[in-house]
Order: sequence, then C-alpha cells, then structure tokens
Amino acid sequence: MNHEQRSREYRAYIESYLKEFYEKIHDQPQKLLIEAMEYSLLGGGKRIRAMLAFEFCRISGRDWRDAAPFAAAMEMIHAYSLIHDDLPCMDNDDFRRGRPTNHRVFGEGIATLAGDALLTDAFLLASRAILPRSDDMARAIGLMAECAGSAGMVGGQVLDILSQERELTEKEVLDIQSRKTGGLIRGACCLGVLAGGGSEAQLQGAARFADGLGLAFQIRDDMLDVLSTREEMGTSVGTDAAKNTFVRLYGLERCEELVKAYTEQAIDALEPFADSGYLAALAESLTERRV
Amino acid sequence: MNHEQRSREYRAYIESYLKEFYEKIHDQPQKLLIEAMEYSLLGGGKRIRAMLAFEFCRISGRDWRDAAPFAAAMEMIHAYSLIHDDLPCMDNDDFRRGRPTNHRVFGEGIATLAGDALLTDAFLLASRAILPRSDDMARAIGLMAECAGSAGMVGGQVLDILSQERELTEKEVLDIQSRKTGGLIRGACCLGVLAGGGSEAQLQGAARFADGLGLAFQIRDDMLDVLSTREEMGTSVGTDAAKNTFVRLYGLERCEELVKAYTEQAIDALEPFADSGYLAALAESLTERRV
Repeated sequence: MNHEQRSREYRAYIESYLKEFYEKIHDQPQKLLIEAMEYSLLGGGKRIRAMLAFEFCRISGRDWRDAAPFAAAMEMIHAYSLIHDDLPCMDNDDFRRGRPTNHRVFGEGIATLAGDALLTDAFLLASRAILPRSDDMARAIGLMAECAGSAGMVGGQVLDILSQERELTEKEVLDIQSRKTGGLIRGACCLGVLAGGGSEAQLQGAARFADGLGLAFQIRDDMLDVLSTREEMGTSVGTDAAKNTFVRLYGLERCEELVKAYTEQAIDALEPFADSGYLAALAESLTERRV
Repeated sequence: MNHEQRSREYRAYIESYLKEFYEKIHDQPQKLLIEAMEYSLLGGGKRIRAMLAFEFCRISGRDWRDAAPFAAAMEMIHAYSLIHDDLPCMDNDDFRRGRPTNHRVFGEGIATLAGDALLTDAFLLASRAILPRSDDMARAIGLMAECAGSAGMVGGQVLDILSQERELTEKEVLDIQSRKTGGLIRGACCLGVLAGGGSEAQLQGAARFADGLGLAFQIRDDMLDVLSTREEMGTSVGTDAAKNTFVRLYGLERCEELVKAYTEQAIDALEPFADSGYLAALAESLTERRV
C-alpha cells in the first residue's frame, strides 16, 4: 500500500468512527448538543492527530485499528480547543474552515458546552481502548490529560493570550508553541505507541518525533498565515500577524531553514521503529505545505 | 470517631490535597491560569463529592486516603462546571459563595480556560490513583467521563437551558436533575467504591444511594432557593424561580415529603455495606438543610 492510500484509509476510518460514536446517542433529548459537537468534530479537518496515532500503533506492532479510541479522543480534544478558541471572549473568529464558527451557528452558551462535552467524551472514548498491557491505561490517560491541560495546551493558550502586548524571547515562543500545538501532537504519537504495545525506546522516539514535527508544523503555519489570502485558506488571514509568531522572530528565510531542520530532527527520532517510511513522508508533506 | 470529626478530617484532607497539587506547579509561566483555577477550586464549597468518595472507599474496605485522587478529580469537575455556568453566555452570575465569580475577577477568556484546565487536570489526577484492581482504571475513567459529559452533566445543562421557555413534565425535570446534579454525585460514590476495591453489589448500591441523595439534595436546593434571602445564601436569590424547579412542579409541601422519601431510598441502598452509619447521617444532614 502506498502512502497516499494509507492516508486515505486512515482518514476514512476515523471519519466513520467518530460519526458512529455520536450516531448512537442521537436519540437523546439533548440532541442540539450532539449536533453542535458534530458540527465541529465532523466539519472537515486534516485528521493529522488520528493519522499519527494509527501509524504509531501499526509500526509498534499492532493492528492500527486498535488505536481508534485514542485517535478519536485526540481529534475530539482538537475540535473542542478550536470551538473555545473561536469564542468571542478568545479569538472572536466568525469563520473556521470556510464555515461559520460553532458559536455563530449554535450561540455562545451551547458552543461552550459542546466544547466541554467533546473534551469530556474524549476521555470516555479513550477509556474504551483495549491495550496490550492493560496497566498502560493509567499512563495513557495521564499523558492525554497532561498534554491538553494546565501544563499543556490550555497553559499554552493562556501564555499566548498574555503575550499579545509584548515581544517574546525565542525561548518563550518555543515554550508556548510546544504546549499549544505540540501538546496534542505529542499525545497522539505517544498514545499510538501505547495502543501498539511499543517499547520504552519507541515511546521516547515518538515523543521526540512529535516535538520536531510540532515545531516544523507551527513555523510553516506562521509562514502560511503571512503568505496566504483568505480565499485560499478559508480562515481570516493575518489575525496572527500581530502576535509573537516565528516569522516575526526569525524572518521568512530563516523560518524556511528551521522547518527543514526540525523535520529532519523528527525523522531522525524514528530510529527505534523498523518501518518509518510513511511517517517520514507524512512529516515532509505536512511541513512542505505551500499556499 | 464521631460523624462530625470524620467530616472535618475529610474536608481538611481534600483542601490540603488540592492546594498541594497546584502549589507544585506555581512556578510555571502560566501562573495566572493556576491562580484562576485555585480561586474557584479553593474558594470554599461543601466538599460533598470528596466526602462521598472518601467514605465509600473506607466502607469498601480500604484506607479512605486511597480515594484522594478521585475525590480531588470530582471536586475539580464540580469547580469547572460552576465557572462555566456563571459565564455571561450561560447564567451570567456576578457572585458565587459571596465572592465575585471567576470571570468577574479574571475575565471571560481566562475563566473559560480555567474551567477547561480544571476538567482536563481532573483526569490527570484520577489517572494517578492506585487501585486494588488495576484493571478498574479504565472503568473509573469511563464512569467519570460518562457522568460529566454529553450524556451526563453537560447534557443536563443543555436540557436545562433549552427548557427555560416552557413547562416541563415531571419525567423531564427528573431527567435533567439526574444528569445535572446527580451525575457528579453518582461518579463520586462509584469511584469511591472502585478505589476501595468494593464488590459489584456495593458498586450498584453506591449508584442507587447517589441517585436517591441527588434527587433529595436537588429538591431541597430548589426549596431553599425559594425560601432564602440573598444575605443568607451568598448567591443571587430567586434566579431559579422562573425555571422548571421541583417546587414549581410539586409545591413546597409535596417537596418536603419527596425529600424524605428519596433520602430513605438512598439509605436503604446502603444495605451491601456493613458500616453505613456515617453516610446515612450525611444524607440526612444534607437533605434536612434549613435556611
């Protein structure tokens, strides 16, 4: 199977897996909540986190479908974070992926609750994973919560908000990025290894891969934000321009070099895995994105 | 040890346990987030959920301190739910427990994120529990997420919002209550049994106890809301009067009878436990509250 086919298979699987999870509870009286959750969860998205979890499970030695509860959980946490980020009290965005944001469709109250429920249900789904070593469940839940909570993604979001009125040092920008975007990517990769029953060395390799990929991905994102136009991206353009982005810190040319370096670093970290071709290709395709 | 002493011991322990958890990460750059979380988490509260988890652990046969990660997790989920409930896009409350609400102190953005982080960190803490049967971790996390997520507390909150403009049937009011208040109480009781390595019969008993107590507690709350004055409660009074409360459904007199009946039902459910005196007394003290 070539890389393209594998990506398509992973994407199709996670879409139907997520859809099925909420279809089952569609007859509950709080139907509007489920609809709001589905609107954001099933409304497009690259499914990178799911693909990473699937592939790390596979190359750790198990059927990649075994990682589905974790893959779905990371996509749900990602979807919740976008809903809350878009709220008027945060970034106040009206559009996301070319569609009105959740609160523009369902109102702020329901949007806030839809985010809360997606975050909570992510742990419900994750708890249903069948792991080669059942003792790893505590570790997996701990990892998930750590990468998403006060020390991880939410912590990074707060630092980002607080930093908007001053220029940050390189160390600060890296710290915010590693929490905000890096957190979930790290979680997805490591949970994939746990679902696959991988070794300690593989778990560490996955974390290092994630750190390199997360940085390369975010630097590329900052570059695209500067270069792109609204029509091409489907989101408001330039909203990040005033913030402490990597472009402001390094300039476009040095960013290009850094993307390459971090992508290489990520690929090098795959050494403990025998079959790392797909992940290397995925990393390159993600970090070579063009407008 | 008499009941009063035990309650004091439980309360003192959970306060210092929660305080210590965040003290350790106080030197992180996202200090403001931690402060916002602590403001609501450590800002008073009856700690009923923690007490229930501790006591169910103890009467299931283990040291009650073993339930601390679960007890703390349920208090964190409770605290997050209050922060989000108070937001302008929800109940828009300015005061809670006699102090300005979280968003009045820290702003809406930080308050939303503080709630998100409390919810996420609750799962981090819970994952650290040492259980007599380590396989029970998946079950405990699943229970927690179920009672708090789209089918539980958040689902109840949505139903509550949607119902404000029409009169509900008795069945609907019971359904909302059982999700909204009942969810976390059920979670606390059942997690206590799992921390204590209790039997299946004890787990079911704890769930039935929680259902009875949750109903009795909420009916009493509705009654107090009608009867009390702002000075005595420290929250805005009568804000619930227009909603579908038990008082509107049954009237005060019938409510009094129902509180008694549900409390009795709760106490009867403790049959699988040898030493249920404290819980029976706790249930009575909670449901006999007067203005």
